[in-house]
Amino acid sequence: MNGDRPIITLTTDFGTSDGFDAAMKAVILSICPDARIIDVTHAIPPGGIEDAAFVLATAWPHFPPGTIHICVVDPAVGSGRASLLIRSGESAFIGPDNGVLSPALPDATRARTAEGAGPVSLPPHIEAYELVNPEYQRIPVSATFHGRDVFAPAAAHLALGAEPDSFGPRQQRVHALPPFRAHLEPTGVLAGRVIHVDHFGNLITDVRAEDLPPAFTAEIGGLVVRGPVPTFHAGMPWDMLIALVDSSGYLAIARPDGSAAATLAAGVGAAVRVVPRT
Amino acid sequence: MNGDRPIITLTTDFGTSDGFDAAMKAVILSICPDARIIDVTHAIPPGGIEDAAFVLATAWPHFPPGTIHICVVDPAVGSGRASLLIRSGESAFIGPDNGVLSPALPDATRARTAEGAGPVSLPPHIEAYELVNPEYQRIPVSATFHGRDVFAPAAAHLALGAEPDSFGPRQQRVHALPPFRAHLEPTGVLAGRVIHVDHFGNLITDVRAEDLPPAFTAEIGGLVVRGPVPTFHAGMPWDMLIALVDSSGYLAIARPDGSAAATLAAGVGAAVRVVPRT
Amino acid sequence: MNGDRPIITLTTDFGTSDGFDAAMKAVILSICPDARIIDVTHAIPPGGIEDAAFVLATAWPHFPPGTIHICVVDPAVGSGRASLLIRSGESAFIGPDNGVLSPALPDATRARTAEGAGPVSLPPHIEAYELVNPEYQRIPVSATFHGRDVFAPAAAHLALGAEPDSFGPRQQRVHALPPFRAHLEPTGVLAGRVIHVDHFGNLITDVRAEDLPPAFTAEIGGLVVRGPVPTFHAGMPWDMLIALVDSSGYLAIARPDGSAAATLAAGVGAAVRVVPRT
Repeated sequence: MNGDRPIITLTTDFGTSDGFDAAMKAVILSICPDARIIDVTHAIPPGGIEDAAFVLATAWPHFPPGTIHICVVDPAVGSGRASLLIRSGESAFIGPDNGVLSPALPDATRARTAEGAGPVSLPPHIEAYELVNPEYQRIPVSATFHGRDVFAPAAAHLALGAEPDSFGPRQQRVHALPPFRAHLEPTGVLAGRVIHVDHFGNLITDVRAEDLPPAFTAEIGGLVVRGPVPTFHAGMPWDMLIALVDSSGYLAIARPDGSAAATLAAGVGAAVRVVPRT
Repeated sequence: MNGDRPIITLTTDFGTSDGFDAAMKAVILSICPDARIIDVTHAIPPGGIEDAAFVLATAWPHFPPGTIHICVVDPAVGSGRASLLIRSGESAFIGPDNGVLSPALPDATRARTAEGAGPVSLPPHIEAYELVNPEYQRIPVSATFHGRDVFAPAAAHLALGAEPDSFGPRQQRVHALPPFRAHLEPTGVLAGRVIHVDHFGNLITDVRAEDLPPAFTAEIGGLVVRGPVPTFHAGMPWDMLIALVDSSGYLAIARPDGSAAATLAAGVGAAVRVVPRT
Repeated sequence: MNGDRPIITLTTDFGTSDGFDAAMKAVILSICPDARIIDVTHAIPPGGIEDAAFVLATAWPHFPPGTIHICVVDPAVGSGRASLLIRSGESAFIGPDNGVLSPALPDATRARTAEGAGPVSLPPHIEAYELVNPEYQRIPVSATFHGRDVFAPAAAHLALGAEPDSFGPRQQRVHALPPFRAHLEPTGVLAGRVIHVDHFGNLITDVRAEDLPPAFTAEIGGLVVRGPVPTFHAGMPWDMLIALVDSSGYLAIARPDGSAAATLAAGVGAAVRVVPRT
């Protein structure tokens, strides 16, 4: 999990106006001076556990093997929830045990609950450890900023070469979100929802590219959008809603000249139905 | 174009909430682990090709020789527009062929069109190549995110030492914006426009410092502002509009205690007339 | 003050939409290629000298010894105000002499004025130098962007190993803000105010944890909040205002499910009174 210049990424809902992310970076560099720290984002909506899991899921696979991902969306910080290190393949994930680390887990392992994070059992090849070793914490640990006091030092020590089992006891169960995957109804309709609104106002849904029929209509917010189009610039009038597979691999509803979210007054959680057409 | 620790900069309209920039950085570091990546900005207004060209033009000359600048404002991504690498002096510029790479070109080379990007012929000392070599792309290339799949890997391979002509065929013509330079009327009046609104609400115009008369009035939004003043804090009442040469080298209309853009309800494209006074 | 890979931090009110921070980074890397540059924040409210001093004060102690902190909130740039390098312990602080570098100074040294930055005398172990040596400036120095032309090159040369006294004459007096510390009234009431509003809308006050009585009521905006609670998630109804010690070490008024600032329509400067209760 270490290397000459280990990469540590940060995904949080901290914003960038208060120096919270800088304090985490300072702690990391104080322990592991050679770390390279990359911000995935600090603009997760406050408390947006599922949103963070989605953004991290789209970003982390592009990083080199050995990368350590810290993800802190942690409304229950200071309560009894556990702090976790999860090793999955050649990557590591560090954060609170509230579902935000779900991208570390394969679909088959993730929760079957209708929504929200539930406890799941881990397969043998995925190792989780509770972060309780005070040698790898900033003491005293504050009640409100585990990003700085627990997660940043854990990532830095892991990057330096600390053994995962030195952080604390191995966990057989962690909290995980259900997979992002729209429900396929017996009629062939995909019943999904919006799971992320991007910077452009595109509505990213949980309908996966591999589940999409070759031609379809997407029903959302009382409107019907025919799809798919191949690109944002597909010869359609620019003020029309379009449906296309986003770079994330999920169906997006977009408006080339503006914001589909604003046009539809829709956001995370909005229902979408994808109906095959011939 | 390479070095021990090559610098790659990013200028995009991607925002920072979705991990798009992080995915680009991940791809770069996967190919070129020693790259140092600097964000110029990800807050270009969506589709703001000219705005991106202005911001990149003010930033890139400060970087060391050998720096590689990726600029992705790309509303037509996935359409037929070409992807380019432009070498100009000791710097390289990578992005779509839609005018956003204009800062790579000297004024004399840039378009003569009234506005918008037109095709121009390159002088021999500026080399452009179309990015078509799949060895330097992330395969499969998505239809909607060439920043991650085409431009980031191209920059990383260039940083590693790939020869420019290995990316694809040399191009004699590229699209470029006309230079940012207000029109000098026979009467001595400079007829220009706002080309950028900065974080403070200052209106940056295309009137260059070297074209300014020693004393002038700037007419904008129905108001007349006497200038120049030397600094934002020039002994004027703080609620007055002022006219000064910005750090970019262009005339700015500003309000020391607030936003000139809000005061004038003016933005990019607003006309400004600079009239010499005695 | 130097090392193999010196750390330089940036705290400004420049925003991130214009490439101002990128120009500073470019200047730094052109002089000191091995510098590691960390953004503390660029989202200080325009002209927010006290806000910047607070954010920097919470972040800088976490950085390793030898770190150089540039802080540029500089509404009077280009006027006669001095540019400073302050060495304090193993850290260095660079910026305008307007109080923004107050985190470099211990409380006992800081101003006794009721508010705003006043001149203070420095103790012998804190060294300040005026930045006047043109060899360590970007020439010509612009009138409006000393971040790029004075402060960035000074930090880079200091990181390279330049002696502090080579930058300019030593200063015995600098401008400093009064310490962030609520007034203890003879009645035992702490009379303070809000000094920062964070990303979550939490109101951070100048009431220090060490001054707080074990139990209290905090009066703010006509409301009374009982405190303290230990965490943001303390078993209270989530739509209630709570009072707790923030990770900064100061009393915060917060609302777990939203913004205390919006709920109270309160911001920086709002009065808070902390009354002991039994």
